Amino acid sequence: MSRPIDLTADLGEGYGAWTMTDDEALTRIVTSANVACGFHAGDPSTIRDTVALCVERGVAVGAQPSFPDLRGFGRRPIELPPSDLEADVLYQLGALEAFLRPHGHRLHHVLPHGSLGNMTVVREDYARAVARAVRAFDPRLTVAYQEGWMIRAAEEEGLPVARVGFPDRAYDDDGTLVRRALPGALVEDPEEVAARAVRMAVDGTITTISGATLHLPCDSILVHGDGPDAVSSASTVRGRLESAGVEVAAWSGPVR
Amino acid sequence: MSRPIDLTADLGEGYGAWTMTDDEALTRIVTSANVACGFHAGDPSTIRDTVALCVERGVAVGAQPSFPDLRGFGRRPIELPPSDLEADVLYQLGALEAFLRPHGHRLHHVLPHGSLGNMTVVREDYARAVARAVRAFDPRLTVAYQEGWMIRAAEEEGLPVARVGFPDRAYDDDGTLVRRALPGALVEDPEEVAARAVRMAVDGTITTISGATLHLPCDSILVHGDGPDAVSSASTVRGRLESAGVEVAAWSGPVR
Amino acid sequence: MSRPIDLTADLGEGYGAWTMTDDEALTRIVTSANVACGFHAGDPSTIRDTVALCVERGVAVGAQPSFPDLRGFGRRPIELPPSDLEADVLYQLGALEAFLRPHGHRLHHVLPHGSLGNMTVVREDYARAVARAVRAFDPRLTVAYQEGWMIRAAEEEGLPVARVGFPDRAYDDDGTLVRRALPGALVEDPEEVAARAVRMAVDGTITTISGATLHLPCDSILVHGDGPDAVSSASTVRGRLESAGVEVAAWSGPVR
Amino acid sequence: MSRPIDLTADLGEGYGAWTMTDDEALTRIVTSANVACGFHAGDPSTIRDTVALCVERGVAVGAQPSFPDLRGFGRRPIELPPSDLEADVLYQLGALEAFLRPHGHRLHHVLPHGSLGNMTVVREDYARAVARAVRAFDPRLTVAYQEGWMIRAAEEEGLPVARVGFPDRAYDDDGTLVRRALPGALVEDPEEVAARAVRMAVDGTITTISGATLHLPCDSILVHGDGPDAVSSASTVRGRLESAGVEVAAWSGPVR
Repeated sequence: MSRPIDLTADLGEGYGAWTMTDDEALTRIVTSANVACGFHAGDPSTIRDTVALCVERGVAVGAQPSFPDLRGFGRRPIELPPSDLEADVLYQLGALEAFLRPHGHRLHHVLPHGSLGNMTVVREDYARAVARAVRAFDPRLTVAYQEGWMIRAAEEEGLPVARVGFPDRAYDDDGTLVRRALPGALVEDPEEVAARAVRMAVDGTITTISGATLHLPCDSILVHGDGPDAVSSASTVRGRLESAGVEVAAWSGPVR
Repeated sequence: MSRPIDLTADLGEGYGAWTMTDDEALTRIVTSANVACGFHAGDPSTIRDTVALCVERGVAVGAQPSFPDLRGFGRRPIELPPSDLEADVLYQLGALEAFLRPHGHRLHHVLPHGSLGNMTVVREDYARAVARAVRAFDPRLTVAYQEGWMIRAAEEEGLPVARVGFPDRAYDDDGTLVRRALPGALVEDPEEVAARAVRMAVDGTITTISGATLHLPCDSILVHGDGPDAVSSASTVRGRLESAGVEVAAWSGPVR
Repeated sequence: MSRPIDLTADLGEGYGAWTMTDDEALTRIVTSANVACGFHAGDPSTIRDTVALCVERGVAVGAQPSFPDLRGFGRRPIELPPSDLEADVLYQLGALEAFLRPHGHRLHHVLPHGSLGNMTVVREDYARAVARAVRAFDPRLTVAYQEGWMIRAAEEEGLPVARVGFPDRAYDDDGTLVRRALPGALVEDPEEVAARAVRMAVDGTITTISGATLHLPCDSILVHGDGPDAVSSASTVRGRLESAGVEVAAWSGPVR
Repeated sequence: MSRPIDLTADLGEGYGAWTMTDDEALTRIVTSANVACGFHAGDPSTIRDTVALCVERGVAVGAQPSFPDLRGFGRRPIELPPSDLEADVLYQLGALEAFLRPHGHRLHHVLPHGSLGNMTVVREDYARAVARAVRAFDPRLTVAYQEGWMIRAAEEEGLPVARVGFPDRAYDDDGTLVRRALPGALVEDPEEVAARAVRMAVDGTITTISGATLHLPCDSILVHGDGPDAVSSASTVRGRLESAGVEVAAWSGPVR
């Protein structure tokens, strides 16, 4: 029998008059959310509404801190002193959790966004800066990401961690994601995405872009909330997981 | 015998490469600080350094939330829905307090900055929005400002309040500040500023611009940290208060 | 026989990863565009693409300067010194026209956006600041807006002006627009909007919210580009204008 | 006899209430200025005042475009698509030149700021993006920088170029600047800076950090405007250049 698995999506990624994802529909599907904290998206009013919606639907609210980059949606790599990055992450965690307080909740996890997330896989200095910020804010807070420096730095800071699988992204044989710009990087067929999600949850494995089978245990499966078919694709993933007998639920205590 | 009085200044008002006040010197003089939260000044690294300096010197850290207005330093009146203002203030309180956590501290008070502060004196909707945000964040948190809608709304939300006196600003007979643009609005002679501070603290009175004596009890006296003579002027105020036998100290429990 | 009339829409109102209007479709319908300049929307890449699309389709490019307010989409009234506003508008005009240079074009007109536009109707100081900026940039440049201080200040600066009609907005008997928040402020039925546009173009009149007939000559008719039915509504307006024998074309010389 | 040489500094690097350099004093010393365009510093009002001051003093106004990075003062390396960079530079050139129009002037040159400048030395893609933007804006416009990809790309776009020397920075034997973080990177003694400037102007040589003599012809010498001794140091450089018989003047036609 498989463990319960969390189904997560990036939410609250609008800004002012602009919207990005259909949070109303997605909060009926996922069990946790990575909520934008104002640096790449997510003004305070958007955060308030996203948090309220998540709380109402029983979706656990995690933080999605990012580089200060509205223009580039947090997808631009930026070189900055790790001490500045640490301060930026701490600022964002505090800002987001403020909106959980009136509901009597705390942050559920932290999942670094966009190029910050990507860089924490391979950059020890950035991973350690993020981990220090999380620990300074709340040492009970889970860091969620794919295998790499981010997970390792979090563990070394004594933080709980959760492994996240990306069923709509192709993997290389070393367990890293195939870069978006390369052909085949994105898995677009919803049924294939769902099948990969089921294998991640049930077997803890993934088929790499070369056809190899990779052991890839994960605690959470991320579905993308942007794009025209995001909602139906996410719904398909959830349906296939449940049909396969997987319990879909956010973790409630320390993950590992 | 007079009550103890808090001596406060706006600190941490730099941004990135820019600086505004000599926080190093001012934290040797004041007993509490109103720290910028990133919307009119105060990037996360500046906040971290300002908070650390205050904690080291025993200066109580309050928040100085403001309109989102780096360009105008928070001095531009902005019309926005009160619900947006409430979300903006909540965001800023959470962001700032995150930097106090590693020191084991909480926010000491909230003093709205610039034109937000000015507008909360006369605008019930803005005052109530700020008060709701403070209450949602932490109902033990003191709201500090001059008499007006801000104080009234805070009291109606059940929040502790502190009255703040501005010895370097002229007062009209109704207890409001003379607008900056008018002649005589600023009291520039440090000795006169100090004498006014002493009267505020000892007698709870101020001489208005018309020469009348006004009853103006206050719990905190604000000295301005910008301007070339800010440090020596603040130092003079503190010296004269102590010579007059006033105990200068931040409040530690509920003010009223 | 009626004069030719310009059909215009606000375009290029995305920012980074966010989009607002279907510019691809709208540039097949309108004859001029009010392009966002980066202050309420419109990052440089969006501007470049919007300008290129307009030039390719023969749509005249005007500027839509605004308050610095990404968060509020330029819809928040802001109090700032008129000299700052003048500088802000000059900056935006220069920035936008830079993207027309490679195409060998100049700006066609200036139409202030959102709350800046609204305020220039009734605020002489803001209207004069905008007019001074336009004149400093290029005294041949047409200012387009509804009747009020903006038009008057532009005329007093010797600038060509164009009157703009808003067929999807209700008018009061004094020729001002009914405020958005009031019931009946928006005309939502596309056929009614189109009928109003035809009367504006053919007769130079509009029926006010009280039922009165108001003389309202206009040189340009603005259709809104946001909202789910924007494209089909704009298309209906253009179709009805042409069926009524109105020549739909942007002006090419001084308007008046 | 040596050619005339331009003495240049970065000016207008304040933002809103914050100031960086003493532009009033520096415009009495330098012959050209690199004016911030709003992305790392330089709000529109600051630009207007800086340009007016330069025009009044006969200082030629160049543009100092940068990455969008107020927080990092344009000193953070950012990875972005070259097409976005090109649009950002074009936007900034147009915005700045708008303030020269009322004076009947055009931009004198373009010198990329901070990490953008540094990266254009070694990154062909960024250098070409900047050069394309300059050419699209005005093919008569001079690109000023140290030897490297920026100069080469500008020449390949057919743009005039000017070589800039940095007498207060140490050089490696290959003509590149020693990175700021390394010991000895900054030459701090004003007399030594001035002596190096004279050798650059008279002999076209510089002594590298290893003691070697490097041929380094330059058309312009950059003095830094920030730091407590900036003004007196700049003044010393100018004095020593004139004492050595060097004519200090901005170029007025194509440089090469």
